[in-house]
Amino acid sequence: MSLIEKLQWRYATKKMDLSKAVPQEKLDQILEAIRLTASSSGLQPYEVLVITNPEIRTKIRAIANDQSQITDCSHLLVFAAWDTYTADRINQAFDMTEEIRNLKTESGTAYRQMLLKNYPARDPEVNFTHTAKQAYIGLGTALIAAAYEAVDSTPMEGFDPKALDEILDLKSQGLRSVVMLPLGYRKADEDWLVNLKKVRRAKDHFIRWIK
Amino acid sequence: MSLIEKLQWRYATKKMDLSKAVPQEKLDQILEAIRLTASSSGLQPYEVLVITNPEIRTKIRAIANDQSQITDCSHLLVFAAWDTYTADRINQAFDMTEEIRNLKTESGTAYRQMLLKNYPARDPEVNFTHTAKQAYIGLGTALIAAAYEAVDSTPMEGFDPKALDEILDLKSQGLRSVVMLPLGYRKADEDWLVNLKKVRRAKDHFIRWIK
Repeated sequence: MSLIEKLQWRYATKKMDLSKAVPQEKLDQILEAIRLTASSSGLQPYEVLVITNPEIRTKIRAIANDQSQITDCSHLLVFAAWDTYTADRINQAFDMTEEIRNLKTESGTAYRQMLLKNYPARDPEVNFTHTAKQAYIGLGTALIAAAYEAVDSTPMEGFDPKALDEILDLKSQGLRSVVMLPLGYRKADEDWLVNLKKVRRAKDHFIRWIK
Repeated sequence: MSLIEKLQWRYATKKMDLSKAVPQEKLDQILEAIRLTASSSGLQPYEVLVITNPEIRTKIRAIANDQSQITDCSHLLVFAAWDTYTADRINQAFDMTEEIRNLKTESGTAYRQMLLKNYPARDPEVNFTHTAKQAYIGLGTALIAAAYEAVDSTPMEGFDPKALDEILDLKSQGLRSVVMLPLGYRKADEDWLVNLKKVRRAKDHFIRWIK
């Protein structure tokens, strides 16, 4: 199957089969794709939580419109973004870059100073909007990586983020929940969406050429 | 090459080779991946502009920190999100779904009414933050699709969005620029980043297991 055929195969699975676990190897590939994807200034300003604990998943389902995939999936991913940019977080990222590359450059130092000057002083809400967007790059990457591995997934925004932050104790860690992605396998005979046609805007209404 | 190897191969290309064009077939695959990816409620609240016009690219470079990839790339993608959700836009999406599936359901109608009740009444800035995030799913998908096709790309937030909106006359179309993605081929001998090690947080600092 080509990548496009895999993307045509994927859909927002409505009913997952709790009895089918995603093999560790496939899970590792999906998580590694997220880790390797791009982020603004390479800061990777979010974490990915992988939740298998049934009690916690039951609690999450209760604050997420009772969506069954949360408890029926194999692994529940929660993307949790930095609540703001701090000098510490920026410095850690640049220190790590210099250490891994064993290289300190003038332009790198100037770029670090520019971020240190601008980011921590901004309204935390502005920063969180920015960190959350980076998590969405991870989500977009995860979706395609899961499809590539023939693993089903369902992106979910429909939950109470403050309640989820409490369940996962994110606030004390300077994180805020952004979006969830249950990973698992479709239970096709109980899924109303599985056989319905995928709907997308026609190319002419989605892509515009400026020649 | 596995998908992970392709993601290791990709990097934010700093110097592109204007003499090398991305073949139409590869470009079509990348654009189709974006079109097929997920979005909240399936609304696809953004458009993708594909810019090859040299004069327009020169103008854009001038309001984007003079980044050379903007004029040296093969195709410049601009992700432009809806400035807000309107009843028209929501109705169009649901009408299209009903038409393509030849199916009108009670739950679909209830869902449409719920969005119609909630989205258009919200502050346009809240809506734009939401539509922009959906464009970032497209960006995350585009990155991986480009790497899959061995096409280089450079995600770019470093530009003046209001100035870009003016150059592309987006405001009159109810759109706002979100992020850019030049597609093309690296000019390795002039790219300072190409041989530097990719830096990512260690797995233990990026992925957390809750068992």
